[in-house]
Amino acid sequence: MSIARSSFYSMLKVPEHQVAGHLAIDGKLGPLVDDSGRFYKPLQGDGRGNKELAFYESFSSDTRVPDHIRKYFPVCYGSQLLEASNGSGLLHHLVLQDIVSSHRNPSIMDVKIGSRTWYPEASDNYIQKCLEKDRRTTTVSLGFRIAGLQLYEGKESGYWRPGRKEVQSFTVYNVRSILRRFVSSNSSIGNENSDCSFAPSVYGGSAGILEQLLELKAWFEDQTIYHFHSCSLLILFDKESISKGSTPVPEIKLIDFAHVVEGKGVIDHNFLGGLCSLIKFVSEVLSDSKESSIKDCVEPEKPGICTDNGNCQ
Amino acid sequence: MSIARSSFYSMLKVPEHQVAGHLAIDGKLGPLVDDSGRFYKPLQGDGRGNKELAFYESFSSDTRVPDHIRKYFPVCYGSQLLEASNGSGLLHHLVLQDIVSSHRNPSIMDVKIGSRTWYPEASDNYIQKCLEKDRRTTTVSLGFRIAGLQLYEGKESGYWRPGRKEVQSFTVYNVRSILRRFVSSNSSIGNENSDCSFAPSVYGGSAGILEQLLELKAWFEDQTIYHFHSCSLLILFDKESISKGSTPVPEIKLIDFAHVVEGKGVIDHNFLGGLCSLIKFVSEVLSDSKESSIKDCVEPEKPGICTDNGNCQ
Repeated sequence: MSIARSSFYSMLKVPEHQVAGHLAIDGKLGPLVDDSGRFYKPLQGDGRGNKELAFYESFSSDTRVPDHIRKYFPVCYGSQLLEASNGSGLLHHLVLQDIVSSHRNPSIMDVKIGSRTWYPEASDNYIQKCLEKDRRTTTVSLGFRIAGLQLYEGKESGYWRPGRKEVQSFTVYNVRSILRRFVSSNSSIGNENSDCSFAPSVYGGSAGILEQLLELKAWFEDQTIYHFHSCSLLILFDKESISKGSTPVPEIKLIDFAHVVEGKGVIDHNFLGGLCSLIKFVSEVLSDSKESSIKDCVEPEKPGICTDNGNCQ
Repeated sequence: MSIARSSFYSMLKVPEHQVAGHLAIDGKLGPLVDDSGRFYKPLQGDGRGNKELAFYESFSSDTRVPDHIRKYFPVCYGSQLLEASNGSGLLHHLVLQDIVSSHRNPSIMDVKIGSRTWYPEASDNYIQKCLEKDRRTTTVSLGFRIAGLQLYEGKESGYWRPGRKEVQSFTVYNVRSILRRFVSSNSSIGNENSDCSFAPSVYGGSAGILEQLLELKAWFEDQTIYHFHSCSLLILFDKESISKGSTPVPEIKLIDFAHVVEGKGVIDHNFLGGLCSLIKFVSEVLSDSKESSIKDCVEPEKPGICTDNGNCQ
């Protein structure tokens, strides 16, 4: 661990594309990024920060984790003492790969996976607090909840980034709708009639989101090393790349490991169940978009808009 | 629905192989069986009985359920007014296929699937009651709990059938041990050194328990019709058949549908997660037993007993 020099501080800034968690604005404590693709996350004082650091240390050196799975986790470069964003002085920060830095105009979804965010060993108080929120959101019903998102809508309109309260009130209907809107070219016109036209290139294909989720699922059916409580799956891609004809680089990454506990020989059935539920939702958007494009071919008089059977609203 | 004649009553008896739930003994209300392979389950008065009947009616007529999945559910023959086993007079009973009747000396395990037994729409009181029991048993940690079992140990010793209190206190260690003992020829000598010698013919093979669980899993990854809360998976086979050289008829069946609710387009991630966890446990017993039999071949001086690497204790 090294103490950063003051010239270094000036290069740090508030992440432009953070969609959930504490933001380093208005004198508050939050993560910072630099221009070289690193993300500095303050170690939370209640032990959670140290737990997350311990997870990264254990994970980095665990040879049981295959390489094709390791790519779904941010690279960790250890920890570093930095001036905290709230001006409280030097604070330990976790130094991570800035996942978003390789994307130009990223559309991002932060999906907290699992039908419970608490772990068996937690205190009664903690469990009740989590349970209350899990029941209030889609966590219990869907096995996951959207914890934050931004949709790139184009040069003119920029990003759609719903506020924390709006995100926390998402229903099952909203989630289904957002997963469609996320891959639609006409997302800016509202929730109805999303055309899902980017679904094949973002969710589909051999390098698409669905294939990545299935690869992760296969690992979760087998791995008994870790249980990932209250962990998020980031889904991101570049919408602008598609309009320019290049690849949208669809990507998934797991983040937030302050509540990871040892698996002790048992699979993480809570994470796996939620992941399978998300996979089903993503598959449905994809198969609906395929159906609707077949329909478009058969009925060329109704191009581009999903209709009753296309079910793409 | 018909009212049974009195000559019919005399044919009804208490099921010999019921391993969980209310028993029709000592003047208590419980299910009855006849000699023709039918199982009569009293409709519970608090609405649960009617909910279970409604489930069977919906399920029987639902054409979305494929035939290869239907075989994992007992056949339902409707309901019938019968003299209740507690002498309280005529009571509606659900008339079901007596799953056990086709087995001679069945070893049976009743596994309640899911890491929660409550459903989102339930009352706070009900949820707290279930949650407390889910945390006290292996439900939360494993995604399933053993709710009852009997192991056939042979003509002399008969069945090992642990009491309700013992079953409710099973730990993760006990569950792992019982899944091994369940398929061992030397189960009567205690929990240690189970030889798992029946694992290949009961858990393994194209008609074995593992293949059946995987077939059920594939359906649960896709079906969004029902959510099966607090539902049990029966695992059963005939140990005596193996010693006689014939097939042990390993079988799984889902039972207890008083808390099934509509899936509303979402997969049953709670059931699926628990099922995957059980699958992992069963796979491990099977692969350990294969390893140990390879070891036996290599080291013929230690036949039939699992050793350190066989890990079959």
